[in-house]
Amino acid sequence: MSVKTLQDLFIHALSDVASAEKQLTRALPKMARAATDPQLADAFRTHLEETQGQIERLDQVVEATGLRLKRIKCAAMEGLVEEAQDEIGEIEKGPVLDAALIGAAQKVEHYEIASYGTLVAFATKLGYTDAAKLLKATLEEEKATDQKLTLLAEQQENEKAAAAA
Amino acid sequence: MSVKTLQDLFIHALSDVASAEKQLTRALPKMARAATDPQLADAFRTHLEETQGQIERLDQVVEATGLRLKRIKCAAMEGLVEEAQDEIGEIEKGPVLDAALIGAAQKVEHYEIASYGTLVAFATKLGYTDAAKLLKATLEEEKATDQKLTLLAEQQENEKAAAAA
Repeated sequence: MSVKTLQDLFIHALSDVASAEKQLTRALPKMARAATDPQLADAFRTHLEETQGQIERLDQVVEATGLRLKRIKCAAMEGLVEEAQDEIGEIEKGPVLDAALIGAAQKVEHYEIASYGTLVAFATKLGYTDAAKLLKATLEEEKATDQKLTLLAEQQENEKAAAAA
Repeated sequence: MSVKTLQDLFIHALSDVASAEKQLTRALPKMARAATDPQLADAFRTHLEETQGQIERLDQVVEATGLRLKRIKCAAMEGLVEEAQDEIGEIEKGPVLDAALIGAAQKVEHYEIASYGTLVAFATKLGYTDAAKLLKATLEEEKATDQKLTLLAEQQENEKAAAAA
């Protein structure tokens, strides 16, 4: 890890979230295919496009700061994706799996909300103003996705899942 | 997993968070010992007590609903705890490690916020009114802990970490 300063820690956290986002781009298409509700499948596909945009934004952060990311694998996102895949493998396609997928996706969103929240604070403290703005834009997208999933769950999916019993 | 209904999914999610909380009770004392700032060490110790209370609340949920939890290991919390432990192992004790520990703890809090948010929604939909109240109480504690950590980071830790460079 070799982290001695706040800047080292910022690089480490950026590298971690870059790994998390890349893992997510591989998981989201599977989640979209596993979803029965067309609105939920759409939400996953939209978030895949957003995630690709967020990866580009990370490249812009690297450019703006002149820092160099490290190759690390985000262990937490590995666990989160594993949970979603287990659910896809073990729950029959339908409203109960949809409810499970929303829960799994919200855990992912909250992981990213925490990550980007910390990154914005570090970038601000380190005086990386442009980077902080870019990271804040992603933070707001993650929060919006989380809220969209909450609405989907509350307005439709949980009702359907309860009725499926 | 054997999840066919929303109730099965509720049991699965409850069992998952019970595993997560137990893992956390083992990680928090290490995080408290690794923290340099006494306020941060205190925050971890307070959250350990809270976590023990939340585990008792899960027992009350089991009692109120008559459901039986399963023995599963929460893979996501395993990843989150692994990240925190890597940081403790590889960053020298001091303000930079403190900033890293706050970030790791906020990821844990957000995992729990997402988990309990979903659990409250499932319990409500399933008509488990008392369980929903208990789970909501824990959800609010997790949110408060996350905000406390944000304040600690913004008001003190990140400043000290930046100065340590």
